[in-house]
Amino acid sequence: MSDHSEPGTVPDIAALQQRLRAFAAARDWGQYHTPKNLAAALSVEASELLEIFQWLTPEQAAAVMREPARAHRVEDEVADVLAYLLQFCMALDVDPLAALAAKIERNELRFPVGGTPPLDAS
Amino acid sequence: MSDHSEPGTVPDIAALQQRLRAFAAARDWGQYHTPKNLAAALSVEASELLEIFQWLTPEQAAAVMREPARAHRVEDEVADVLAYLLQFCMALDVDPLAALAAKIERNELRFPVGGTPPLDAS
Amino acid sequence: MSDHSEPGTVPDIAALQQRLRAFAAARDWGQYHTPKNLAAALSVEASELLEIFQWLTPEQAAAVMREPARAHRVEDEVADVLAYLLQFCMALDVDPLAALAAKIERNELRFPVGGTPPLDAS
Amino acid sequence: MSDHSEPGTVPDIAALQQRLRAFAAARDWGQYHTPKNLAAALSVEASELLEIFQWLTPEQAAAVMREPARAHRVEDEVADVLAYLLQFCMALDVDPLAALAAKIERNELRFPVGGTPPLDAS
Repeated sequence: MSDHSEPGTVPDIAALQQRLRAFAAARDWGQYHTPKNLAAALSVEASELLEIFQWLTPEQAAAVMREPARAHRVEDEVADVLAYLLQFCMALDVDPLAALAAKIERNELRFPVGGTPPLDAS
Repeated sequence: MSDHSEPGTVPDIAALQQRLRAFAAARDWGQYHTPKNLAAALSVEASELLEIFQWLTPEQAAAVMREPARAHRVEDEVADVLAYLLQFCMALDVDPLAALAAKIERNELRFPVGGTPPLDAS
Repeated sequence: MSDHSEPGTVPDIAALQQRLRAFAAARDWGQYHTPKNLAAALSVEASELLEIFQWLTPEQAAAVMREPARAHRVEDEVADVLAYLLQFCMALDVDPLAALAAKIERNELRFPVGGTPPLDAS
Repeated sequence: MSDHSEPGTVPDIAALQQRLRAFAAARDWGQYHTPKNLAAALSVEASELLEIFQWLTPEQAAAVMREPARAHRVEDEVADVLAYLLQFCMALDVDPLAALAAKIERNELRFPVGGTPPLDAS
């Protein structure tokens, strides 16, 4: 895949969205990428990430990146989650970075410092 | 929350991670943010995004941003998914942008142009 | 809702499926209950069950039924998961009890006694 | 696996729970089957069921049992969802059939006949 970023540099969100769009267009996958399907795919990939951890103790979970095969699997699922999140956002014209910045502002007000644990936050 | 970005500009991933880290530290929530808990929370938030769409027809789903209350809910859940993804990545020192760039490279090889539909891709 | 079971007795799976079917029919909800929508709803409800546990330590999780409000929430989400599983199975004419019996037989062969932990079983 | 049900008959929920318990005990898997882990596993399996449908049109989804390989996969994931639901219920001493019967009673009151669509019901 050719883009115009420097070799060895990590692209930013906008560049990744561009590459995802080109990838899907070249394979005529746009027809599958409806908002509803992408939301389903995002949740499926997030569960695949969770699957890696489901039987691990907290100690095993914290050490997961020390084993190369598992570390690769974690990075692979992180990539899938981010890919579907970015494609979902493109489908509905949502800016994920602006959405998160706004949410952090709201949470500053909702959860004052020194307040409750996150048990019932959502 | 005070950071040093220009007013009105959207922060990048690194700035958002910094703000998420400060937010959790100020509330002593770091103890909850183990990799396993964050993977669970990420999958829960992705399902909350899917919940918005679960009973909608494709047409209703495509129009979801035209209704302000639903649009806000979509942006809110996108923010939560991204927040937990970034916090998970901080906990395990994974670079989500590099992981996605590498995955796109691999998928270029796995799914040649003109090949199969994504039905069994994962 | 009137059925013909004895008061105070717990209905079996077939009776519950009958009641779910009547409930949906009376509200004209059958149009929403496609296999794909029901699979999405099932996964959303399973995540709502997980949400109760996401920040809990193993000790807190084991004690969850001792607190009435949380115990009620657990039972409520268990009911939702079972409801959508049974409705999904009705939509596709799958017998969930027969499917599980067959799966246990297969797993007896796949995972011999004294073998591996379930880390990679799925 | 030997139990005392008649050959060819489908066991009921109690018999399946008994078999699941014996299966886990023989493999010393009880240590993994904490309520939190089982809730995570249940949500992971529900997502694997959803994965089968994520790119399908409603028509393809409705025809999924006509293709033997996909039909088998559906039954396999239904079995996994039910298995983890039953094991979760055993771990916390919840009766899933009673929970669903009680929930249907509550929903009769919450959603009167002739009322709203299920869009915001949960």
